[in-house]
Amino acid sequence: MSRNQYPDIRTINQGNSSITRFSTKSPLFICVISYTDTSAIPGITAAGANRDFVKYTPAADAEFLYYGFCKCIDKVPITPDGNPTPAIITRGALGLADIPFLVVDAGSKIKPSIPYVSFGIDPGHNIESGVAVESIDVKKAFDYGRMLGRQLGKSCDLMVLGESIPGGTTTTLGVLHALGIDAKYKVSSSMQTNPHRLKNTIVKHSIQKSRISFGELRNNPLEAVAFLGDPMMPSVAGISEGVLSVGGKVLLAGGTQMAAVLAILKSLGLKMNEVCIGTTIYVANDNSSNLAGLVSSISTEVPAFAADLHMEKSPIPGLEAFARGFVKDGVGAGGTSIAAMLKSDGRINGDIILKAIEEEYECVLHGKSR
Amino acid sequence: MSRNQYPDIRTINQGNSSITRFSTKSPLFICVISYTDTSAIPGITAAGANRDFVKYTPAADAEFLYYGFCKCIDKVPITPDGNPTPAIITRGALGLADIPFLVVDAGSKIKPSIPYVSFGIDPGHNIESGVAVESIDVKKAFDYGRMLGRQLGKSCDLMVLGESIPGGTTTTLGVLHALGIDAKYKVSSSMQTNPHRLKNTIVKHSIQKSRISFGELRNNPLEAVAFLGDPMMPSVAGISEGVLSVGGKVLLAGGTQMAAVLAILKSLGLKMNEVCIGTTIYVANDNSSNLAGLVSSISTEVPAFAADLHMEKSPIPGLEAFARGFVKDGVGAGGTSIAAMLKSDGRINGDIILKAIEEEYECVLHGKSR
Repeated sequence: MSRNQYPDIRTINQGNSSITRFSTKSPLFICVISYTDTSAIPGITAAGANRDFVKYTPAADAEFLYYGFCKCIDKVPITPDGNPTPAIITRGALGLADIPFLVVDAGSKIKPSIPYVSFGIDPGHNIESGVAVESIDVKKAFDYGRMLGRQLGKSCDLMVLGESIPGGTTTTLGVLHALGIDAKYKVSSSMQTNPHRLKNTIVKHSIQKSRISFGELRNNPLEAVAFLGDPMMPSVAGISEGVLSVGGKVLLAGGTQMAAVLAILKSLGLKMNEVCIGTTIYVANDNSSNLAGLVSSISTEVPAFAADLHMEKSPIPGLEAFARGFVKDGVGAGGTSIAAMLKSDGRINGDIILKAIEEEYECVLHGKSR
Repeated sequence: MSRNQYPDIRTINQGNSSITRFSTKSPLFICVISYTDTSAIPGITAAGANRDFVKYTPAADAEFLYYGFCKCIDKVPITPDGNPTPAIITRGALGLADIPFLVVDAGSKIKPSIPYVSFGIDPGHNIESGVAVESIDVKKAFDYGRMLGRQLGKSCDLMVLGESIPGGTTTTLGVLHALGIDAKYKVSSSMQTNPHRLKNTIVKHSIQKSRISFGELRNNPLEAVAFLGDPMMPSVAGISEGVLSVGGKVLLAGGTQMAAVLAILKSLGLKMNEVCIGTTIYVANDNSSNLAGLVSSISTEVPAFAADLHMEKSPIPGLEAFARGFVKDGVGAGGTSIAAMLKSDGRINGDIILKAIEEEYECVLHGKSR
């Protein structure tokens, strides 16, 4: 196996295993869609053309994965700047490598018109309220996740877990505070200009309300979620636990939001040597956040990988924008790209995925005109 | 491979392929839970301790598969005679062979406390009303089934599809009428004494109401379901279509209810050579029904197999009763037993499964006393 078998997968931290440890012939992708009212705070997220659309984004992303268009909204989710959802990358990568996927609804506000796995929980609250997720829902999300992970962990050799939850980097900042990891100025953003001050202020208010001191809940990560997190976190953590418990491997597909899941898994005392994080190079290269640093401060074992999709070369402005720091990742875009490269033994590379993404984009444009 | 590798799998019809065609290393079981108001007609089903409990049976079966006990009712589902749900066989077989499973909710009246795939459809009506399933739900069930089947068909080498829907043999009789297959006195029953006359009368009334002549809808099977079927049928047919479309194999795990699904697949013009039916020897041996004959009248290609679980040898009366014609099959009991034998290359046989079932039964008794 040549050292350059996967030239477009970069190791971005000091984790102690190489990408070949996560080689896969039969990956499965699960996208967890969710919601937190924290995303309704003005200026916190770009996941939606405007504030009214943010709550539709997770359902629309899930529909886009299946249909290549959305049912709950007229167009695909876009940022206020007009950049498309990263689901366009995910759909391209999954299709290229023929990777199966499922969607889990863990408290999304709008339900997608697809067959989805229901965790039967409510959306998360604004974390400034002092109650982020009802405790009963945190437990249910984790338990159901574990049940699902135990089953589906037997049906794949790599479980790739992504998310669509607007506002999720702010709840990440909150949960990491409770778990004793300083994430200020380290979390990522779907915006080119990361609203760190706003996030810090929101989390400061939330901490004042919930009275959770730094690191106070490091041994009780599910309580940290209940106070300062969102419903995606215990869901993805639960699925991960289930997969690991049956001897499977987990690729957490996302940017800094997945650092929160990683910290939860670490706090639960799980063995981390079968877990990695996979994102896009656009998160890895982002100067306004620090995924590699966050991961290292959580675990020295866990490697973080980034897919280079060469989007700077795209003639399509909405895609080229990813390379300039817009959107960057989400809906498991980076992780599924890595899985596609792995499953194809490197035959699929960043250029090939970019071509597929551009074709998806053309389909979207075409669909719009119909 | 010895001819007697699977001594407890019997071929019960003239299908043109042997069980080795359905060999599997990575099967996946999906149990579709559903409901039809037809089951509320007195005397039609034994799936529930009494009429009030029938609607809980599908959810309780699904919960039993995950937990080994039920949450929506205090005990496991039993017949009025006190015989346990066939889910006890399913759970035993799945556990022995470490076969992963998922539950799909396709219009059950009570929702189980588990992570389930939601098809977002309503329960079926009493077929005597002239509308068995809303047309929009028939289409949705089939479409969502197909979407799910296309994904999960890539994650297994054999898709095993079971059901829990009380009253389902009566709707089977109805749908087969519309599709031009005479199933009178051929459908099975969860009761030892098959209420054929009652079923025939109900279907007669339903036909009078819906005005569907024999074979009238043989080219429109989804419409046949809308007039005379139940929500399980298009769901399982859709999943099957999806699995077949990605090159997978399907084992329809059930008795005569699966003949309705088979007839739908045949009417849709699907290639049947990757489909088989798997049940228990107790359905196959039943003199009051004729699964083999039904299957042959639908397709000469499709083999039907039966698992011999030697339940006549069980010292537990509720299990020994299966061999005397009570319950017989359901919740994919026979099909998952066959899958367990196949996955283990014959190491798991009927005796070993019976032992696991008896252990499940002891756990249930133990649970009851807690």
